[in-house]
Amino acid sequence: MGVPGHRLDAMMNPKTVLVIGDKGPNYMWLKNNLPFKEKGGNLYSLQIDEREIPGIKELGIENFTAIADVPGPIDYALVAVPRQVAPYVLKDLISVKANGAAFFTSGFAETGEELGIQLQAQLTEMAREADFNLVGPNCMGLYLPKSGVRFSNDAPVADDGKIGFMSQSGTHGIMFSLVAGANGLHLSRCASIGNAIILDVSDYLDYMADDSETEVIGMYVEGVRDGRRFFESLRAACSKKPVVVWKGGQTAAGARATMSHTASLATPQATWDGMMRQCGAITTNNLDETVDAMRALLQARPVRGTGMGLLAQTGGQSVSITDAFAKQGFEVPRLTDASYAQLGEFFNIVGGSYQNPLDMAGTIQGKVEVAARILEIVEADPNIDAMAMELSAMFAARQWKSKPETLDEMLAMLAEHARKSGKPFITVLHSAHEEEYVGSIKSKFNDHGVPVFNSFERAAAALARSRDYYADSKA
Amino acid sequence: MGVPGHRLDAMMNPKTVLVIGDKGPNYMWLKNNLPFKEKGGNLYSLQIDEREIPGIKELGIENFTAIADVPGPIDYALVAVPRQVAPYVLKDLISVKANGAAFFTSGFAETGEELGIQLQAQLTEMAREADFNLVGPNCMGLYLPKSGVRFSNDAPVADDGKIGFMSQSGTHGIMFSLVAGANGLHLSRCASIGNAIILDVSDYLDYMADDSETEVIGMYVEGVRDGRRFFESLRAACSKKPVVVWKGGQTAAGARATMSHTASLATPQATWDGMMRQCGAITTNNLDETVDAMRALLQARPVRGTGMGLLAQTGGQSVSITDAFAKQGFEVPRLTDASYAQLGEFFNIVGGSYQNPLDMAGTIQGKVEVAARILEIVEADPNIDAMAMELSAMFAARQWKSKPETLDEMLAMLAEHARKSGKPFITVLHSAHEEEYVGSIKSKFNDHGVPVFNSFERAAAALARSRDYYADSKA
Repeated sequence: MGVPGHRLDAMMNPKTVLVIGDKGPNYMWLKNNLPFKEKGGNLYSLQIDEREIPGIKELGIENFTAIADVPGPIDYALVAVPRQVAPYVLKDLISVKANGAAFFTSGFAETGEELGIQLQAQLTEMAREADFNLVGPNCMGLYLPKSGVRFSNDAPVADDGKIGFMSQSGTHGIMFSLVAGANGLHLSRCASIGNAIILDVSDYLDYMADDSETEVIGMYVEGVRDGRRFFESLRAACSKKPVVVWKGGQTAAGARATMSHTASLATPQATWDGMMRQCGAITTNNLDETVDAMRALLQARPVRGTGMGLLAQTGGQSVSITDAFAKQGFEVPRLTDASYAQLGEFFNIVGGSYQNPLDMAGTIQGKVEVAARILEIVEADPNIDAMAMELSAMFAARQWKSKPETLDEMLAMLAEHARKSGKPFITVLHSAHEEEYVGSIKSKFNDHGVPVFNSFERAAAALARSRDYYADSKA
Repeated sequence: MGVPGHRLDAMMNPKTVLVIGDKGPNYMWLKNNLPFKEKGGNLYSLQIDEREIPGIKELGIENFTAIADVPGPIDYALVAVPRQVAPYVLKDLISVKANGAAFFTSGFAETGEELGIQLQAQLTEMAREADFNLVGPNCMGLYLPKSGVRFSNDAPVADDGKIGFMSQSGTHGIMFSLVAGANGLHLSRCASIGNAIILDVSDYLDYMADDSETEVIGMYVEGVRDGRRFFESLRAACSKKPVVVWKGGQTAAGARATMSHTASLATPQATWDGMMRQCGAITTNNLDETVDAMRALLQARPVRGTGMGLLAQTGGQSVSITDAFAKQGFEVPRLTDASYAQLGEFFNIVGGSYQNPLDMAGTIQGKVEVAARILEIVEADPNIDAMAMELSAMFAARQWKSKPETLDEMLAMLAEHARKSGKPFITVLHSAHEEEYVGSIKSKFNDHGVPVFNSFERAAAALARSRDYYADSKA
């Protein structure tokens, strides 16, 4: 749906995409965007180098040598030319009234060199004067999974994206889309914003806050130009949907590194943190935390309350899972006497325990119906607000690996529980010594809609972010 | 070699092992210990149930029905009988002067039941009176990888173990051995200590502190009976080799969970932390941190100083790796002008940077010799005390996966650098969206002696533990 009438709407829902200056042998940008063409979009190339044109034609893409010849209107252009050429290309784009363009081209202010700084100033002035929607430069441009517009040839094409994402790093934007995708989470729209000389975080954020396809917003940001405007945009966005903010350059050394990366000016971290709190944003520190937060927000029910029901396979893990959740401010309360009476009927306490945490060693013993019964009792307990269950890599390797049907049975049961339970329910499967095998079965969890985290600590941190968000917001 | 003359030495270097009460269809304990028999040890069974004996004979193991008939001396017995039978078995073991025994049997004080508490008191009194080396009960017993004595049939048999480990959780002991093994690290000796009614952490710790085969000691502990003695043992051990202590039950809720697990009495966390500091122990919070610390201590050179040289593949990652190390108290200093002059000769700063952190995008482009040259220059810089290099899952998937020889070339170069460099050098390869593939190549890193961590944060935390250890100790 997008946001009809918004200045970015044509670019965010393109019918015509033009790639300018792409080169062989890889033709990276044209290939990235082939899915757009396959979905019926008009994908064109602008390339004046005669030697490159045969390769472009081989891809089945029409090439033009003058922008005036391209059938318009051009909704979005991707520019991959040398930095000295960038101003000429921008002039052309402005002349044909293209809706917007991303400049993959880099070598501007982030180099610290005079030439780069001067070229950046030139682009800025031209685009500002023409009120042109310039993405970047020094960026990977837009990623629109539903349209098939991509910033990477391994980024998923998907119609069910719910996450709007902005990234001041091309790598982090692409990695977020890949890791989220591997975890069953797709993006609605994404912008790699680079040096953000014209369109800044706030512009994309305003769009995504109003975009009906975007349920959760995330961003990787190193700095913003206009702090006041960002504050207003963020506060407005947070009032509409959860916004997860991953800040790069939190330390003095990290902030220096952002200078070389995107020429971002540092905001003192305490100021930044205060702004995040005032806006009600969900803050994260790295890619994993960001994806984990998205998983908690989109794959589990809202966490309302602090009472965790914790189910572990063995005694040592029951202690570890409890420490992890308690450190994140959760309680691990006693269950009601009624629950204990029910559990007492069948629970084996020699080598086990059902106090909460539950140590299920010796009780489950691979029996899915017993695990289901335990989940049912704990879920119904009024002292419990959310549940986390350990799935052991050791047992996985010993049982599931040799008898894949036992994994399917377990997943079917967990999926059923997650579906019918009114409380948040997540699982933890540490890849441990079985990184390859556990990696190979993660997609099954996604297919079944069973949220799975890689460690107790990561699970606890993600649920805590959901808890704090729903405690603060009126949602 | 062990510790000749020590009361645990026969048990820790057994020639005769007796399994008592093992049952089919799995014969778990006899099968766990088959490698001991294959290595020439005397592995015997004691089982009076006639129905179990044919299965035991099928394994090629001699069974006895009376302990007096077992050819002695018995160095180590593993007892797997019902809890009510445990005192009778202990009486037998004492009568034949066995050196020691581990009781897998559980259902004692950890249940909170009167019967369990009473049986535990009985075992304690008997063993104490006879000065008997009782391991457990409610434990997985000893794991002696070189002897082939095992607490799990997937635990590695290995002659190159350097880590002595004690665990108050069977799961954590086994998982540590499995995850360490998957990371190229083997154990010298390990004890799953369970309820520790006779032999406590301090007893094993004293042994491992003097054991020449043990270079680093680790432990998972929920509580100790005799705090004063533990303090003395730990302080003495820390003066001889690094000791990594992973404490379970750090929170109030976690401490309550340890009661159900091993009936451990909680030590206030602040008291515990103070004791760790005074002794010079290296503290960790979970399995991953514990294995990571071992990797830093055993696979990289000692970290002496705070100046990190950080090499990332792209700009966004250069910011992230810097934040991660800066948060752990490391500096990311400017290099010398001499280093910059050398790097300036070939480094591509359009879309890259070599300030430190280094953003190698556009400079390396898959060329191993360029990466080697960068490593060489940074390594030689006097401002740099240690180096960490990002290896990208994205590039791994795009390059190594399709051309495995490019991974081999990279690993050979990294191994050569790690070998000849006098400074600690580690790599980071986040499994990201490629958990299965990255998991499949981890063993290659181990084979090449290239330390690899799964995230910037984990790498930084591990190197910080090495740095703090070598700063505090006189080693």
